Amino acid sequence: MRVAEGLIATGQARRALVVTGETPTLAANYAIRSMREFRDAFIGFTVGDAGGAVAMEPSDDERGIFYRHVWSASQHWDVTGVPGGGSRHPRGDEFLYARGDGGQLRDIVRAFDVELSLRAFAATGTTVDDYALFVIHQVTGPFTDEMIGRLGFPPERVARTIEQHGNIAAATFPVALDEARIAGRIRRGDRVLFVGLGAGISVATLGLTL
Amino acid sequence: MRVAEGLIATGQARRALVVTGETPTLAANYAIRSMREFRDAFIGFTVGDAGGAVAMEPSDDERGIFYRHVWSASQHWDVTGVPGGGSRHPRGDEFLYARGDGGQLRDIVRAFDVELSLRAFAATGTTVDDYALFVIHQVTGPFTDEMIGRLGFPPERVARTIEQHGNIAAATFPVALDEARIAGRIRRGDRVLFVGLGAGISVATLGLTL
Repeated sequence: MRVAEGLIATGQARRALVVTGETPTLAANYAIRSMREFRDAFIGFTVGDAGGAVAMEPSDDERGIFYRHVWSASQHWDVTGVPGGGSRHPRGDEFLYARGDGGQLRDIVRAFDVELSLRAFAATGTTVDDYALFVIHQVTGPFTDEMIGRLGFPPERVARTIEQHGNIAAATFPVALDEARIAGRIRRGDRVLFVGLGAGISVATLGLTL
Repeated sequence: MRVAEGLIATGQARRALVVTGETPTLAANYAIRSMREFRDAFIGFTVGDAGGAVAMEPSDDERGIFYRHVWSASQHWDVTGVPGGGSRHPRGDEFLYARGDGGQLRDIVRAFDVELSLRAFAATGTTVDDYALFVIHQVTGPFTDEMIGRLGFPPERVARTIEQHGNIAAATFPVALDEARIAGRIRRGDRVLFVGLGAGISVATLGLTL
């Protein structure tokens, strides 16, 4: 969405369709021979497949992206991921399954300073009350509860996708947005705050007026 | 570079490093059992591995990108490529080799209307003489000669990479630029025109003042 914003703002595009199609279940390894292998592959059993898209175009009013921030701590690149599919492991099915250390991943994300996202409020002169919806990336139910608590978002205004769909990665954002729209929880002119967590580790925060 | 331009112009980035690292030789299939397989895999024997990068930052003078145009004819997506490595073929080494119909590819690229790139001149009020260097994507030597002839670029101002490196895909552009810089063929303030051809099929044209 930040890239589309740049292309539209510089006149390189009139409209943009930002699409995500996530099929992480393809990386789930069910050929497990030990408890250790199970733990390493566990992350692959918590995911769901989903897709979504947003259409973006120039606006001449308040609608649009009003805050964007990206942060990464790339020293954690190896904690979780699918090691193959690139030049490091160009061949070999064994490299094409998701693996990761769930405990280590949890510790890293717990250490993530929520101020990275909460500075959106100070930067834009808004408070939690100015947002109709909060969408955060959801790895597991308990973990989502913990994150919501740490971020201080009112649970009733957080879009939940984990119970219905599992961890659907980047698709969390368009799917949550569409489900909230269908349920009548958001309407034109509402503010929405997105907080994305990615393997890598990266944290992205984006504020949008619908 | 267009994306970086948008991110810089909208204040989302101060500087950008646009990097390409191409390792197409990893997709060359040397386990050939028939002439038909050889023809199908041939495209993998014409490539070379290379990488390069350009640093971009805001300028307050004439330097920078002054023309950009992208065109694609996606009905030709299946003519050449590496079929695996995505959700269509999530597993199986057999899908991870380059394949393609060289004759069909040649016919499609021959049918490419050079006006798509040459309109850069009319759009920017420039002529061939205003450019110190032309960089075009190079698949084979004869094919490169043919393309240069059709585009009407003076051969002595076209950067050649095919003889030294093979088809190095997107890396053609930074590598050619750096070699021309080292050879003293380009200097600050010079105009360069880039014409990229990609499987897919896509054609991108970019004009840059160094």
